[in-house]
Amino acid sequence: MTSAKSISVEDIKKHASPEDCWLVIDGRVWDFTSFAPEHPGGADIIYKHAGRDATASYSSIHAPSLVTTTLPPSKLIGQLDTKTVTEDWTKPPPTETPQLALNEKPPLHTLLNAYDFEEVASRTLTKKTWAFYSSAATDCVTRAANAATFDRLWFRPRVLRNVRDVSTATRILGCDVGLPLFVSPAALARLVHPDGEKALAAGCGAKGVAQCVSTNASFPLSDIVASAPAEHPFFFQLYVNKDRPKTEAMLRDVIGTGRIKALFLTVDAPVAGKREADERVRADESLAAPMSGAKATNDRKGGGLGRIMGSYIDATLSWDDIPWLRRCVGDLPIVLKGIQGAADAKLAVQHGIQGIVVSNHGGRSLDTSPPAILILLELQKCCPEVFEKLEVYVDGGIRRGTDILKALCLGATAVGIGRHFLYAVNYGQEGVEHFIDIMRDELETSMRMIGITDLSQVHPELVNTLEVDHLVPTTVGHPYARWRPKSRL
Amino acid sequence: MTSAKSISVEDIKKHASPEDCWLVIDGRVWDFTSFAPEHPGGADIIYKHAGRDATASYSSIHAPSLVTTTLPPSKLIGQLDTKTVTEDWTKPPPTETPQLALNEKPPLHTLLNAYDFEEVASRTLTKKTWAFYSSAATDCVTRAANAATFDRLWFRPRVLRNVRDVSTATRILGCDVGLPLFVSPAALARLVHPDGEKALAAGCGAKGVAQCVSTNASFPLSDIVASAPAEHPFFFQLYVNKDRPKTEAMLRDVIGTGRIKALFLTVDAPVAGKREADERVRADESLAAPMSGAKATNDRKGGGLGRIMGSYIDATLSWDDIPWLRRCVGDLPIVLKGIQGAADAKLAVQHGIQGIVVSNHGGRSLDTSPPAILILLELQKCCPEVFEKLEVYVDGGIRRGTDILKALCLGATAVGIGRHFLYAVNYGQEGVEHFIDIMRDELETSMRMIGITDLSQVHPELVNTLEVDHLVPTTVGHPYARWRPKSRL
Amino acid sequence: MTSAKSISVEDIKKHASPEDCWLVIDGRVWDFTSFAPEHPGGADIIYKHAGRDATASYSSIHAPSLVTTTLPPSKLIGQLDTKTVTEDWTKPPPTETPQLALNEKPPLHTLLNAYDFEEVASRTLTKKTWAFYSSAATDCVTRAANAATFDRLWFRPRVLRNVRDVSTATRILGCDVGLPLFVSPAALARLVHPDGEKALAAGCGAKGVAQCVSTNASFPLSDIVASAPAEHPFFFQLYVNKDRPKTEAMLRDVIGTGRIKALFLTVDAPVAGKREADERVRADESLAAPMSGAKATNDRKGGGLGRIMGSYIDATLSWDDIPWLRRCVGDLPIVLKGIQGAADAKLAVQHGIQGIVVSNHGGRSLDTSPPAILILLELQKCCPEVFEKLEVYVDGGIRRGTDILKALCLGATAVGIGRHFLYAVNYGQEGVEHFIDIMRDELETSMRMIGITDLSQVHPELVNTLEVDHLVPTTVGHPYARWRPKSRL
Amino acid sequence: MTSAKSISVEDIKKHASPEDCWLVIDGRVWDFTSFAPEHPGGADIIYKHAGRDATASYSSIHAPSLVTTTLPPSKLIGQLDTKTVTEDWTKPPPTETPQLALNEKPPLHTLLNAYDFEEVASRTLTKKTWAFYSSAATDCVTRAANAATFDRLWFRPRVLRNVRDVSTATRILGCDVGLPLFVSPAALARLVHPDGEKALAAGCGAKGVAQCVSTNASFPLSDIVASAPAEHPFFFQLYVNKDRPKTEAMLRDVIGTGRIKALFLTVDAPVAGKREADERVRADESLAAPMSGAKATNDRKGGGLGRIMGSYIDATLSWDDIPWLRRCVGDLPIVLKGIQGAADAKLAVQHGIQGIVVSNHGGRSLDTSPPAILILLELQKCCPEVFEKLEVYVDGGIRRGTDILKALCLGATAVGIGRHFLYAVNYGQEGVEHFIDIMRDELETSMRMIGITDLSQVHPELVNTLEVDHLVPTTVGHPYARWRPKSRL
Repeated sequence: MTSAKSISVEDIKKHASPEDCWLVIDGRVWDFTSFAPEHPGGADIIYKHAGRDATASYSSIHAPSLVTTTLPPSKLIGQLDTKTVTEDWTKPPPTETPQLALNEKPPLHTLLNAYDFEEVASRTLTKKTWAFYSSAATDCVTRAANAATFDRLWFRPRVLRNVRDVSTATRILGCDVGLPLFVSPAALARLVHPDGEKALAAGCGAKGVAQCVSTNASFPLSDIVASAPAEHPFFFQLYVNKDRPKTEAMLRDVIGTGRIKALFLTVDAPVAGKREADERVRADESLAAPMSGAKATNDRKGGGLGRIMGSYIDATLSWDDIPWLRRCVGDLPIVLKGIQGAADAKLAVQHGIQGIVVSNHGGRSLDTSPPAILILLELQKCCPEVFEKLEVYVDGGIRRGTDILKALCLGATAVGIGRHFLYAVNYGQEGVEHFIDIMRDELETSMRMIGITDLSQVHPELVNTLEVDHLVPTTVGHPYARWRPKSRL
Repeated sequence: MTSAKSISVEDIKKHASPEDCWLVIDGRVWDFTSFAPEHPGGADIIYKHAGRDATASYSSIHAPSLVTTTLPPSKLIGQLDTKTVTEDWTKPPPTETPQLALNEKPPLHTLLNAYDFEEVASRTLTKKTWAFYSSAATDCVTRAANAATFDRLWFRPRVLRNVRDVSTATRILGCDVGLPLFVSPAALARLVHPDGEKALAAGCGAKGVAQCVSTNASFPLSDIVASAPAEHPFFFQLYVNKDRPKTEAMLRDVIGTGRIKALFLTVDAPVAGKREADERVRADESLAAPMSGAKATNDRKGGGLGRIMGSYIDATLSWDDIPWLRRCVGDLPIVLKGIQGAADAKLAVQHGIQGIVVSNHGGRSLDTSPPAILILLELQKCCPEVFEKLEVYVDGGIRRGTDILKALCLGATAVGIGRHFLYAVNYGQEGVEHFIDIMRDELETSMRMIGITDLSQVHPELVNTLEVDHLVPTTVGHPYARWRPKSRL
Repeated sequence: MTSAKSISVEDIKKHASPEDCWLVIDGRVWDFTSFAPEHPGGADIIYKHAGRDATASYSSIHAPSLVTTTLPPSKLIGQLDTKTVTEDWTKPPPTETPQLALNEKPPLHTLLNAYDFEEVASRTLTKKTWAFYSSAATDCVTRAANAATFDRLWFRPRVLRNVRDVSTATRILGCDVGLPLFVSPAALARLVHPDGEKALAAGCGAKGVAQCVSTNASFPLSDIVASAPAEHPFFFQLYVNKDRPKTEAMLRDVIGTGRIKALFLTVDAPVAGKREADERVRADESLAAPMSGAKATNDRKGGGLGRIMGSYIDATLSWDDIPWLRRCVGDLPIVLKGIQGAADAKLAVQHGIQGIVVSNHGGRSLDTSPPAILILLELQKCCPEVFEKLEVYVDGGIRRGTDILKALCLGATAVGIGRHFLYAVNYGQEGVEHFIDIMRDELETSMRMIGITDLSQVHPELVNTLEVDHLVPTTVGHPYARWRPKSRL
Repeated sequence: MTSAKSISVEDIKKHASPEDCWLVIDGRVWDFTSFAPEHPGGADIIYKHAGRDATASYSSIHAPSLVTTTLPPSKLIGQLDTKTVTEDWTKPPPTETPQLALNEKPPLHTLLNAYDFEEVASRTLTKKTWAFYSSAATDCVTRAANAATFDRLWFRPRVLRNVRDVSTATRILGCDVGLPLFVSPAALARLVHPDGEKALAAGCGAKGVAQCVSTNASFPLSDIVASAPAEHPFFFQLYVNKDRPKTEAMLRDVIGTGRIKALFLTVDAPVAGKREADERVRADESLAAPMSGAKATNDRKGGGLGRIMGSYIDATLSWDDIPWLRRCVGDLPIVLKGIQGAADAKLAVQHGIQGIVVSNHGGRSLDTSPPAILILLELQKCCPEVFEKLEVYVDGGIRRGTDILKALCLGATAVGIGRHFLYAVNYGQEGVEHFIDIMRDELETSMRMIGITDLSQVHPELVNTLEVDHLVPTTVGHPYARWRPKSRL
């Protein structure tokens, strides 16, 4: 050893830059300045320890003798003077996580899941936009239950199957799609991003995800569908206007685009739910939806966008109106969005409907309406025959690829996601594509983990529903068998 | 473009008032001073962004070109000097939520639900008043379960029914009322508001809600009933005095008013429950209840108003006293308040009672007594015939229109609310009316959401009770069939 | 009105003492100095508002005109100058809750329940004493479940019964006691109070509560029993020493006192449980238990008093030793403390035992051993006949009179409380008496609330166990019927 | 009494050192300086009270008169001047818990359980190392459920059995081991400690615990096995490489060591799970695993070590490959690690497998895969015959000796622990040995507490599984009996 010079920590700390870079390893002080750029593991890890003791990091990777065979003796500066070691100096080097301003969006690629998009949206959307999208009816019990119920369904994974190649492709209402997932309709996407529904269309078009456009979209339908490739499937969500001819005219326009593959009639919101977070923030009174013609305002009850902009909706709409709607849309498939139990699912079949979305409007209509995935189970228990007569979709609480897979195993053809697509469009088209990539990745991984490679292989035996089965009605009727008209004294 | 002058942020910030109002949109600085008052969306939204970058807000509403076609070129001040942009300046404008002092009541119209009234009361009532009303027996398990159990009952909503016109009107003991809701009796409402029970009567009278007046009211009954229209229905709650002639005299006065439609005999408080929060705060010893003659005091156990002012109550009262009570009240309907199981409900029928309130005194008498709504289910399971013989009401845990609707679907004629009417009278008569409006709004919305328009349509099939059914006794007896007298060595 | 002089808030605040006391009521300023001492509601409430606006407090009690008829016109100082009112001045007067130093005991009469005693103990005992008594085995799951399970048992109260006179008297092993409650044995009570077990004996003797004295008591048995009246019943808890003659000698002494009515043999602690909180605090090595001769020390595992002082306990003790014990104690009743299931309860009957305590040592022996009250239910389900052959007691998790009553309704003759009696002796004999008074008060109130007046009336029908019934084994065997010896390859 | 001199607190506080040590007892001030070293209870307790009032501590141990008979009258300094007592002085002496720097390890002997090791690791490992080991798939539901489910299994302890001598010895796949516990395989242990898997081997070798070495170990197998005694059993965990000849070569080397007693084939990770905490921290790109040849890197998805270093794993591996593997390993027992249900357990038997680990990869592969201990129950319910054909192990959520014992009672031959052995090697070999000592101590105590002395006595009747039985599938099929291919319109 050519040098036993004793070097103090104070001295070592002065050599802490790429240009002048000393490290301590096993009590010896080395000059890594010229070697660092050639380090097979990259210079960064060396610079991170510049002016510090790198023994722990070094030893987790290299054999003790490596440094002496790698660096020439001339780079050995001396021995660490251990008397000068301070507690502060021995701390591992700081890992730099750059601080984000409270309302700043982190880089898109650092968002790993749906919750990340939600967290960013909660900080960066305007207070009103966040209130409008995130809110739900009264105490938000159903909103929470929609998501939480999925975590009470357990997989029954199968192993040792060849799962190298996996496909998430499927068909919805006869349309080929890349994922068993569609964008649930939501109003006024421009609140989130200037391109609103158009950015959603562009992103979905690029990734093969069907989009259901709201009657209350921020843009005319023609602008939206023009943002995606010509063959890309769209659906159209309908609120029926009290002034029926207006609806008839709108539907003519909608069908006239030639791009709509199905009509989704919302049936779970004859009036708007009481969304208190939305009411508590004043609405921008210049807001308007071009297709429905709805306009925002504020009144003594508050600024609830959903309530005020939904005032044109016809609360008289009933099963008797289905023939009228059929005449309006011709042979376009009709899907009822908001079926919440077996009795109405059976009625849908009887009325010649092509599909139903079991949904509670994301918990936004009636609090303590049943979690969406439990409605699917109710259909399985009470009226399994409906799955043969029409397609069943689930909307509400989907956050993960595992959630999608569970819904499919239990009989759904596809699932809808509403809020989180809006949180994704916070980053424009690119955000939408990244979000879809995440969901597909998660779905593919989950399929492999349960041992399937194609959506034709989904099956109820792959999911254990025992934790929630006791909550699911087994009949359309009620266990309290006898019912009496209340007596009046 | 007439001007490419570069404008710094520092400069722009100086023009931040309605009188001198610059905004930045898409990198250009415009003078909106003269246009703002004519803005179709209102001037406020423009003033909010005065001296700031309004691009995000603008783009969520308007097409990019609109500003150039709306404002004359002379209003274009120049280009934003982007080098001068600071992080602080790019933040969205502050949304002004005026700070309330801790003990200040917010404006009444900003209160959206029963919890809002409770929160305001917790801050603005005196410590003693809050302790007296909000407290419950020992560990408050039953108080919490009363409310929480409603959230474990799930609706089974029906869709596509004509729900435009909806009515909440019903009859209680032969009286027409606007809502299936009455004010449960509570002592000393003057603690909350100088007009106490009189303000409650005025508000309920205006809105068609029946009121049950407590034996321990702050005002004489005659003052209270005089506050409501002549035809408005009142009930009277009775604690029987150990000195029975006093009770007989009081009942003569009560009946003498000619305004009482039923007598509610409290049966779940032969002694007062142990309400520790109430005991821990000293009572104002000048407090007194004019009808019962009860007076507040303090002793070694504490300052519990319920305990001390209830010391006159006759703990010997039993079923054998019902004939005596019947003689006292003539043909006035008698309602037993505090029935907690099927066995006593059946006895009530046998004793010729006209109504029962399934109730645990809001959790104030015996902790871990059963949640009120579960008692209703017990009656449905064990003795459904009682619903044909008398009217059944539920009291305890009602916070929402959904709670009312669930109770009615499961067999109740009406529900009682106690504490939250007291929290409402914190705003006087106006508060009571606003609270009733909220409850009716919530009830109407909930009725529409499950697909009914009239209270005659309520039905158990509209509620899924599976989450709690296992908690409900199915017989008056017990699953541990064998019982033995304990041996004594 | 003699004066309309305008008085500022600044001026009013100067008259804020009993000697010079102005109050504002309804905008008028009055001098209450001479009237206050004669106020029927007490002077305190007036002094509390001295120099302030007392309108709210006044109006909650008095008619508006009262002040003008009570005070002479000369006491009207003038009109409040409302322009001078500040937000601060309008706040309600501070309610003075005197601050306690962290380790100071509040006055005994302010303690209202068992949790209050526990809270005071946690602050005022030494860290080691608190660790020793409050700790339990490993993750303390059983300790928590002992208490929590009681809150999952619901009463089924009966109403309209004459409950004026109520008695908590009963008999334990032939001894008359005032309450169905005994002091469970615990070591070294002197850690809590200089008089330790003697203070417990004095308090229990005064209140008619039986006391079970630990082998590891801080005082000799003769000192302890001498602290209570001659006829007062004591039990003696036994740990058998590896050196059996020592145990035999001790038992001769114990029986020689003539005061012991039964021997409680601990069977759930052949070795000490792993109580980590206790291990983490060093033991005072001068600690010793005079009867057992155990001494405290510390070792590499820690300072666990239970572990170290229990090292003399004979882990070979088995059913085969019962005849030996019977010879040692003659015809004294033998009670097994720590039975945890039906199988051993049946063995106890077969071995001629007089009583069993279903107990898990307060969760101190084996974590996830079953909650005590569930063991009682297991006995009811699996071997109800044992209740006819011996007395059954419950120990573990009793905190409230409701807990005692539930245990009795479900078949227990009495219950034991350990830790909370130690927390009570923190106040010496007086604390023990106050604690017993609280438990009796709670028990009496609970009895009245469910409609019984005597402990002979307890019955399982008064308790709804449905929430926990699914946790209770119904047979001594196991649902996984088939069992195989594990194969060895 | 020779002196009544009044001494102030200020004065007393000056005599607060071992060299000059005054204490106050019962109001008298004594000089303990010369006596302290001879104190039978140790000098420390006296020095702790130097300059203070020691009455409370003294009285909890000694009779009041002892001090007067122990110390000569000359040591009585005088009487405490009670007027000078301050609140601060009366506080108990501080208990010195030396402050640890945030990233400093406490002394090993102060770690009492597995959670202590985990807590220390969370503070002292690098952020990346902690993220890699502690993370699990997506929302970590399964990771939490693995451990939490054990706390829902309740013991059914038996008492009064001779449990003095207890043995934890057993056999795994024909190998004698000291504990029914093995080290589950985990990658890259050198991240935790420079000696990584070698320190694990040394500690396990000294304590008789079998170790399963990962394909991705930090050291070559020969280095690892050389660290333990020659007869000590090792297992080898295998990920099959897409390049099969590489795997064949590695297996030849592995078998060539002559030290491997079984091959554990991982079957629950055909691809890596999505471990987000791991992805969020960049990987050190110089990391590599010598046996598998895997190298760390970072990509746009993040720095997930598990994902990136597992990219060589062959996702085509299926039951059809078992004969190939059998040829590779000869007559070495094959164990499948990651069986998650009865269907695959039965297939394992059919394929001639010698053992299975019911495991979900510590929750790291698929979130909401079933908790490991519930898989064991599923096997008991659906296919109990497999326990006779092969050995069954449980891995996932084991934290306590009670957990081990429950798994064994329910049919497991042994259990595996992964993460916590890594947290133990944070202290090197000594940490591993201490951790094993803790687990054996806990297991022995638990065995004694349920009344058994040998692992041949474990039995399902000793565990109450009722709280979770409803979650366990009873058949390989599904309660929703009918399944339909989804219709396509």
